[in-house]
Amino acid sequence: MPPNTMDTAPSLESCRALDAADPLSPLRAQFQLPSGVVYLDGNSLGALPQAALASVQHALQQEWGQGLIRSWNDAGWIHRAQAVGDAIAPLVGAGAGELTVADSTSVNLHKVLWAAIGLAQLRGRGDGPARRVLLTETDNFPTDRYIAQGVCDALDWVLREVGPAPGDHAQAAAIGHPRSSAVMAALSDPQVGVLLLTHVDYRSGAMHDMAAINRAARAAGVITVWDLAHSAGAVEVDLKAAAAQADFAVGCGYKYLNGGPGAPAFVWVHPAHVDAVEQPLRGWLGHAAPFEFDAGYRPAQGIARYACGTPPILSLTALQAGVNSVRAADPLGGMAALRAKSLSLTRTFIRASQAAAQAHGLHLATPLRDEHRGSQVSWACGPQAPDGYSVMRTLIERGVIGDFRASPRPGQPDLLRFGFAPAYNTHEEAWRAAQALGEALRHVARQGPRAAARPAVT
Amino acid sequence: MPPNTMDTAPSLESCRALDAADPLSPLRAQFQLPSGVVYLDGNSLGALPQAALASVQHALQQEWGQGLIRSWNDAGWIHRAQAVGDAIAPLVGAGAGELTVADSTSVNLHKVLWAAIGLAQLRGRGDGPARRVLLTETDNFPTDRYIAQGVCDALDWVLREVGPAPGDHAQAAAIGHPRSSAVMAALSDPQVGVLLLTHVDYRSGAMHDMAAINRAARAAGVITVWDLAHSAGAVEVDLKAAAAQADFAVGCGYKYLNGGPGAPAFVWVHPAHVDAVEQPLRGWLGHAAPFEFDAGYRPAQGIARYACGTPPILSLTALQAGVNSVRAADPLGGMAALRAKSLSLTRTFIRASQAAAQAHGLHLATPLRDEHRGSQVSWACGPQAPDGYSVMRTLIERGVIGDFRASPRPGQPDLLRFGFAPAYNTHEEAWRAAQALGEALRHVARQGPRAAARPAVT
Repeated sequence: MPPNTMDTAPSLESCRALDAADPLSPLRAQFQLPSGVVYLDGNSLGALPQAALASVQHALQQEWGQGLIRSWNDAGWIHRAQAVGDAIAPLVGAGAGELTVADSTSVNLHKVLWAAIGLAQLRGRGDGPARRVLLTETDNFPTDRYIAQGVCDALDWVLREVGPAPGDHAQAAAIGHPRSSAVMAALSDPQVGVLLLTHVDYRSGAMHDMAAINRAARAAGVITVWDLAHSAGAVEVDLKAAAAQADFAVGCGYKYLNGGPGAPAFVWVHPAHVDAVEQPLRGWLGHAAPFEFDAGYRPAQGIARYACGTPPILSLTALQAGVNSVRAADPLGGMAALRAKSLSLTRTFIRASQAAAQAHGLHLATPLRDEHRGSQVSWACGPQAPDGYSVMRTLIERGVIGDFRASPRPGQPDLLRFGFAPAYNTHEEAWRAAQALGEALRHVARQGPRAAARPAVT
Repeated sequence: MPPNTMDTAPSLESCRALDAADPLSPLRAQFQLPSGVVYLDGNSLGALPQAALASVQHALQQEWGQGLIRSWNDAGWIHRAQAVGDAIAPLVGAGAGELTVADSTSVNLHKVLWAAIGLAQLRGRGDGPARRVLLTETDNFPTDRYIAQGVCDALDWVLREVGPAPGDHAQAAAIGHPRSSAVMAALSDPQVGVLLLTHVDYRSGAMHDMAAINRAARAAGVITVWDLAHSAGAVEVDLKAAAAQADFAVGCGYKYLNGGPGAPAFVWVHPAHVDAVEQPLRGWLGHAAPFEFDAGYRPAQGIARYACGTPPILSLTALQAGVNSVRAADPLGGMAALRAKSLSLTRTFIRASQAAAQAHGLHLATPLRDEHRGSQVSWACGPQAPDGYSVMRTLIERGVIGDFRASPRPGQPDLLRFGFAPAYNTHEEAWRAAQALGEALRHVARQGPRAAARPAVT
């Protein structure tokens, strides 16, 4: 048996038994899911919580329509971003008042990288050779690398990437671990001042060992910045773990937090240094007293300084419902229960799909070991596999929605991604999706690839 | 008669006659306005277009709930920001494809100021002494000055402010003109490279002569950046006026564009140099090919490079309805008709309120001359006036919603602001608001100021 294979395929009955025993099964009723669809793309866009319909309607009709400008006070709009931040905080191990909601993940990443470099420079005074390197991974999400390169260019730092040697990605992924040790080895260069990592890789679903990396970074005097886009609401995160505390984090509202398309993002800064440095986007809502209309900028104390302009209240209201849909797990076991279910779902899907997938030349790009796996399963298209884009289109037409990620560069495979949201997906869905994947593979192997043009968004 | 007085007060009947003859009167039915309220704060938050209820509901229930991730293509989410930008463009004299919607006004201002300085440096090579001064006004909106100071700090430029001598603000405002000539005089310093102005002042409603300033700036080799927050949808703007073209502009979606609380903002760059420089926030949606997940950042051609992260689709959908509510004036005379009505509304309110206002020690902070007046009327509280905050609270309790702006510094008065949105306000409302203002002034003069604490947002 090859090393990237789990035990035998589960039966539909065993999946139903797992669902029957699932302590989180009441959560699914919170969501409006289209009938006849198995939705496995919550890692791109979470499902609609029913409560968002009512709360956004209320924000429109009552708060905006009737309350008008008065709602900044009367409906609490001015405090809503922080309220949602406080609701997200425990999902990632942050304290109340330490995390806020603002802007997009990209904009927040720009803020925290700028501040992290500022902090590194502040700490580095008279501390040996200047630290001028921001370390990240070649496989980090493109926007993270673009933003990082922009900040490095502006501040005369160097972006360095830890990555696979050309061509070894498939093998590295297949053996099932993230590159945490390579990252930690790279921290030994005393020029490295800041480390930017995405906790769970958007392509493979491989998850870094955050605690080990934070410990190594602290020992090396390196400031850590974590992108939790594929983590928040899906895997346990402990930003303030004992002896392994992170420094900065950002994350996304519209994936496992179910905040709706383009939901505002979140930002967290360790309270020990949140007041030590400023972020560069000095909008009025990050001011210590926005409504005093001071001549000069005085950053607010604490995480409030990471606000900038006026937040999009309707999208923020939907995000609030989304976060609540995850926090509804609190009395049922909370993030630990969500994580356990997520692992069970991905394990079930791997077991149920691996025979057909491997028979058609796919290989698993997602780590088998639980501690290395986020909340998605990615099948990589080997050279003999049917055309991956056609396979995913066929699956979607048959009501199983995952997504396709084309190879970003030579030596990397196309991927079929399946995200599992523990708040609403079921083991039966994992089983059905696996059957559908087998059928789609056989169909495309028989019919050949589609000629149709790909749409704007894949 | 003092110079800041118009002719005699209008009668209720004459106001009704103006409304009966108003070619834009059909537009009001588009909005959901609370009964019994005269809403004169559209310069802070525009009213709710009925169409936003349906379109946001559709975006929630159908596009998100049923379409899920497919809606990025099938519902056109990926193109929505540009579609709304194209709908805004003609309202400010921009061409199709030149203006897009993204982020907040503050974030967009950071982008364009950074790019404007980049452009100034590009043009300035071998061109005499280096330009290192960003010029703005002391009275510019605080977030504009904060953002400008941040960009100047980052790029080692100097922020210089043109402003009144201490104590002369009240008089300068009362004689009824903006400080365009002082700004133009300051352009003669060859160190000035970029000029940032808000077209219509948020406190006084005074409007700059954009064409004259643009001409002077071009002659001086200075790049212009306009904040159109209080202009778009209320006054005519021609960013590409012959021989008086602007260089960069940003603006707000939630004021006269009726886009809802915290609606996304817009950004425009002159097509002659949009591709010459980059903005600093390199998010993936500003990339030339976001879904190719390139290793390196290649900015998109044209205004698309001013996108950053994923836009908040629900708030963007509401903004689309808001912009449509203004564009509904197109067959009825368009922006010219909206501007004519706006001037008529502010003129009516000034005429109807001036006797009581001046009798209670208020003075007009808004220019009387049409070409200097935006779409609001501000009464400044002189030293003998009743407490302005108490007056505005009294007005709001009696169903007339304007807002109060406390003095930002010694020598400047507190202001009572009344914004007039030509898409929904009427002359009768202007008349009723003026009567209510007189009653509130008499009431507070009699009762004295309120002791109550002011809320978070004033």
